[in-house]
Amino acid sequence: MKRFLDLADYSRDEVVDLLALAQSLQDKPQPQALAGKILGLVFFNPSLRTLSSFQAGMARLGGHSFVITPGQGTWQLETRMNAIMNGAAAEHIREGIPALASYCDALGVRAFAEGKDLNEDLGERLFGMIDDLCDKPLINLESAVNHPCQALADWRTLDELNVPTRAKFVLHWVYHPKALPLAVPAATLHMAAMRGMEVVVARPDGYALPREIMDKARSAAAASGGSVNETSDRTGAIAGASVVYAKEWGSTAHYGDVAADATLRAELKDWIIREPIFAGALPDAKLMHCLPVRRNVAVADEVLDGPRAVVKREAFNRLVVQMAVLHRLLA
Amino acid sequence: MKRFLDLADYSRDEVVDLLALAQSLQDKPQPQALAGKILGLVFFNPSLRTLSSFQAGMARLGGHSFVITPGQGTWQLETRMNAIMNGAAAEHIREGIPALASYCDALGVRAFAEGKDLNEDLGERLFGMIDDLCDKPLINLESAVNHPCQALADWRTLDELNVPTRAKFVLHWVYHPKALPLAVPAATLHMAAMRGMEVVVARPDGYALPREIMDKARSAAAASGGSVNETSDRTGAIAGASVVYAKEWGSTAHYGDVAADATLRAELKDWIIREPIFAGALPDAKLMHCLPVRRNVAVADEVLDGPRAVVKREAFNRLVVQMAVLHRLLA
Amino acid sequence: MKRFLDLADYSRDEVVDLLALAQSLQDKPQPQALAGKILGLVFFNPSLRTLSSFQAGMARLGGHSFVITPGQGTWQLETRMNAIMNGAAAEHIREGIPALASYCDALGVRAFAEGKDLNEDLGERLFGMIDDLCDKPLINLESAVNHPCQALADWRTLDELNVPTRAKFVLHWVYHPKALPLAVPAATLHMAAMRGMEVVVARPDGYALPREIMDKARSAAAASGGSVNETSDRTGAIAGASVVYAKEWGSTAHYGDVAADATLRAELKDWIIREPIFAGALPDAKLMHCLPVRRNVAVADEVLDGPRAVVKREAFNRLVVQMAVLHRLLA
Repeated sequence: MKRFLDLADYSRDEVVDLLALAQSLQDKPQPQALAGKILGLVFFNPSLRTLSSFQAGMARLGGHSFVITPGQGTWQLETRMNAIMNGAAAEHIREGIPALASYCDALGVRAFAEGKDLNEDLGERLFGMIDDLCDKPLINLESAVNHPCQALADWRTLDELNVPTRAKFVLHWVYHPKALPLAVPAATLHMAAMRGMEVVVARPDGYALPREIMDKARSAAAASGGSVNETSDRTGAIAGASVVYAKEWGSTAHYGDVAADATLRAELKDWIIREPIFAGALPDAKLMHCLPVRRNVAVADEVLDGPRAVVKREAFNRLVVQMAVLHRLLA
Repeated sequence: MKRFLDLADYSRDEVVDLLALAQSLQDKPQPQALAGKILGLVFFNPSLRTLSSFQAGMARLGGHSFVITPGQGTWQLETRMNAIMNGAAAEHIREGIPALASYCDALGVRAFAEGKDLNEDLGERLFGMIDDLCDKPLINLESAVNHPCQALADWRTLDELNVPTRAKFVLHWVYHPKALPLAVPAATLHMAAMRGMEVVVARPDGYALPREIMDKARSAAAASGGSVNETSDRTGAIAGASVVYAKEWGSTAHYGDVAADATLRAELKDWIIREPIFAGALPDAKLMHCLPVRRNVAVADEVLDGPRAVVKREAFNRLVVQMAVLHRLLA
Repeated sequence: MKRFLDLADYSRDEVVDLLALAQSLQDKPQPQALAGKILGLVFFNPSLRTLSSFQAGMARLGGHSFVITPGQGTWQLETRMNAIMNGAAAEHIREGIPALASYCDALGVRAFAEGKDLNEDLGERLFGMIDDLCDKPLINLESAVNHPCQALADWRTLDELNVPTRAKFVLHWVYHPKALPLAVPAATLHMAAMRGMEVVVARPDGYALPREIMDKARSAAAASGGSVNETSDRTGAIAGASVVYAKEWGSTAHYGDVAADATLRAELKDWIIREPIFAGALPDAKLMHCLPVRRNVAVADEVLDGPRAVVKREAFNRLVVQMAVLHRLLA
């Protein structure tokens, strides 16, 4: 394994193997497995869990890490090809990424969607450039439309909770004061489909996930025996569900149009997860969310503080599965 | 020991034991004592000594650390219970702290006073929440009204200087351009009282330490054989003193009222420590300060650059005593 | 070796020895050479390569490092002697540097030129203070008019490329939207002179390097058998050159006068390195630059993406030579 960029790059069996490695590293710690190895971490965007869990994971395997945050203690990095660099960015990723890669044994990069052109983001234009520029193992810490570390952690969480492979999994749009990227919804959808679940995307009109993302998930579902559907009927979606995975994202009907998205979402503040919404779900249905979550805006206190919420377990599993990724890339 | 939150949580003998452990780790380094252990450090407020000395201390004991600075490379964290999170904070400490705690073996948190409601700050409302949310050993890196690491380092410094237990210790208010929290004055007062010293708090009218803090220190003094008094007479306070501990804090008579505090303190710029003030002190009286100190505003160059100042030793002792705290919590 | 502040502090033989040590650490890694050692890194100014390569270098030698960035998570640090500190800076370097030095085994500091008074910057007023305040081995991570780590990495790069000692080396001024410091041009000039090269500084009128810097380099050239000349004739300078080292710096004729510099440089946008400029150079002439470089402003894409550019090798060599410096200071 030379890259960890997209769960879809692996077969279902390979993912299951990776999760088994994660468990084995929990059962039998290998505190020297990555002795002398160095992980570089580059954050073009904010992080809490990713930053801390990767640093902790490397340390638990005996390795080291360093953190670069462009624009904060480090020059802003230009990402446009052929740019005439007379603006704020003092350095181009064409120099910056190879330099950083040359100092470490693996590089992790977070680079959110630019959120202007849907096709560019779907094509992972920026992360593709970074991939080309990095001659060391590369880890996607969240790109324009992917977040494989989160997806892998969520898969493990579902396994730990004994959620059956064929159970109903609802990816549920929730309100947020502003448009957020498609990375987690796309990665979560793909993960659940690849795991073989009966996936329903519940989202308001104007927030359908792009066809490319839906089609990719449907292919994965076809291979695993699962299914992928979508609806704007929240109640119908949640009926019989084992899992409600709450997530915020921006309008795809108005991608990159902040004003149009704002107008549309202003009417959608009732797309919040409160306890009554679980009325038709299975009695022990779980609430998942990748975090950070805005309490009482996206999910109510009563749910986050109740027994359905497994968000802390998801967060902890970031550490567990990422150690397996690091081990596979570097050991 | 599962927590290091307040010197008052320990008996005098336990503190003396901890200082003995600090000395023993200096005499006989244990470079592998914390091998494989991870310390998470969360800074809601700026730091120089705490950040670097805890990272260095973990490394000297063979462990690792990571640093999270909410609002800087990491989302701002909400701290209000039941908040409707539609503002700047994207994540609540109710999710953030447990996630971080799950990645490490001990967590250190700095969270200054909110400076609005004296009772809330005296009650350590925020740190109490963090304490409840953290299921790993927790270290107070400075809370609303406490700074036990600084207090412990200062106790060691007094011991190193052979300042007698019964010597006169003056906690001396000094001018600062704006109100600062009560954490260091409260922790210093308690430490000196607990050590058994004859403590006098010299402060202008309007800057008396809250009764709760004074009472708590008087209890400690009663147990150790020391005493705690206060006065607005600087010269009288310093007469016969072995130590002048300079510290800035905000008006308690106008707690949370920035304008009233500013008006009051504008008249108090002569509450600076200059050499002549030591005229009535013991000949070799020392000047202590927790740092950072504003030169020629709080303490004059002539004192900081002279033989009385032991501020660098206090700063170094942060490292020494914190290694003992880490060892006690994690070894 | 107790300090690494200036290549000029060492004889040519000593530098050659240090480069041999760098090679030897590449050939035979010493992953435990600095076990238990701690490097403190203080960045008054932004960094990408220095920050990451020093952290990686310490880790590769078995040591640890911590990073302090004044003004960002840490108080702003005052640097003026005798300041009345009633402004933004809460702490003076007279306290801050000794405290940090006391926590580590070596300290690296980056502090750019103040850019106001040429004589103060040439005299390294600020770095001289830091030097006086630090009682541990000290590394210059770029000061007002020096950057010895970059110079050492560039020397190694020239050796790796088999550029003959007597070859022609052109330090070539290039356009930048605003004035940059003299640190890299001064250090590069000295390095090339010390290596024994035929150095020509090609720069527009108003951008001559200060006489002190030229004289110092000429002394080094005299000792090594090289030469140092300057001209505003770019074509003449490049004729027969083996290396064109592009670098941006501010007008020395108008040092500290931002408006006058801006007026002058506005006419100098054609001082960019494009492929045709190499017409008179040796066929395999190399383009060097310390990075960060503004593409299509200082150097064109066609050159940076072509076979002449060795900037990535220079960046990697930062890691390699700095490990030798760390080893020499700490092993």
